[in-house]
Amino acid sequence: MELLQKKIVDEGIVLSEDVLKVDSFLNHQMDPKLMQAVGKEFASRFQDKKITKIITLESSGIGPALMTALELDLPLIFARKRKSLTLNHDLISASVYSFTKQETNEITLSRKFLSKDDHVLIIDDFLANGQAALGLIELVEQAEATVSGIGIVIEKAFQQGGALITDKGYLLESLARIESLRDGKVTFAKSESKQTI
Amino acid sequence: MELLQKKIVDEGIVLSEDVLKVDSFLNHQMDPKLMQAVGKEFASRFQDKKITKIITLESSGIGPALMTALELDLPLIFARKRKSLTLNHDLISASVYSFTKQETNEITLSRKFLSKDDHVLIIDDFLANGQAALGLIELVEQAEATVSGIGIVIEKAFQQGGALITDKGYLLESLARIESLRDGKVTFAKSESKQTI
Repeated sequence: MELLQKKIVDEGIVLSEDVLKVDSFLNHQMDPKLMQAVGKEFASRFQDKKITKIITLESSGIGPALMTALELDLPLIFARKRKSLTLNHDLISASVYSFTKQETNEITLSRKFLSKDDHVLIIDDFLANGQAALGLIELVEQAEATVSGIGIVIEKAFQQGGALITDKGYLLESLARIESLRDGKVTFAKSESKQTI
Repeated sequence: MELLQKKIVDEGIVLSEDVLKVDSFLNHQMDPKLMQAVGKEFASRFQDKKITKIITLESSGIGPALMTALELDLPLIFARKRKSLTLNHDLISASVYSFTKQETNEITLSRKFLSKDDHVLIIDDFLANGQAALGLIELVEQAEATVSGIGIVIEKAFQQGGALITDKGYLLESLARIESLRDGKVTFAKSESKQTI
């Protein structure tokens, strides 16, 4: 997705060989027009998958996921990272380790919002080690619903998440695939196209 | 806002005299068309305020705030509830006590995204005791920017938050004002109109 790649090149800050900071348009400050374009792109890539629900993980996934949900006219559920007092019964949960934050979060979803007839599109802002995406997949499968695809805004293709997901047979669409952050520079993977089994 | 009131009556669950659960359309599952309508309504109410930035607090504020940002074509910043490893220098912070979760969170914002020339619209999903809104106001004022208004999706008008904010002279617009949750029933305040000093 050219608009997104341009934004990453123009505004992304390479902090190390592993860490790309995109807090000016994606995960702290958000560019709503870019989020809308991202939503339209996901909607177009998954439009023939008979999706019935979209899920994401708070907080940075909510923007792109909400815009996709708006385009596809479908409900969005955002999984929470901790239990809250007003959301505490009949939860589905999974453990997710964050390498960035070096901590394990329990991510939770109310069972009542997913049924076994649901075909679910999982959206997230980043794919690196794949732990968050795998946790979301686990939530959907605990509800006996079907994972119809995973849409990622920025995939760090030099990390293992993409392979972990596609090796299990899931459809993955990443709008920008970064091959390397070496020498303080963002290099995109040549193949931006979808990875399917 | 009639559409919102109808949704609250149809789908809101009164858990106690203090707690209204709206997790089917606002703060766990989200209705994107309703969020879009909420965004259009906020945009219309604040369109003459020369807003330059919108801020909210993760996570439930992001939906309505992003839709407002899209309508007004302005950047959105969401304040975070904890410091992350990749977002750790030159932060503005404030302490916010959550009565629901019975804990104090430090909310933070990168100083670089707000300047003293900014006119900021604060958006949040709920206003009850006003602690989150006051924390967001504090962040804006630490950056020496101007708070141009506060937009709330659902105000529990029987709690003190609204008065705390308007008594300080801030413009507050709440799209639904709940007068009482007694007898398991939602009663809206007669005046839905804006509270100004």
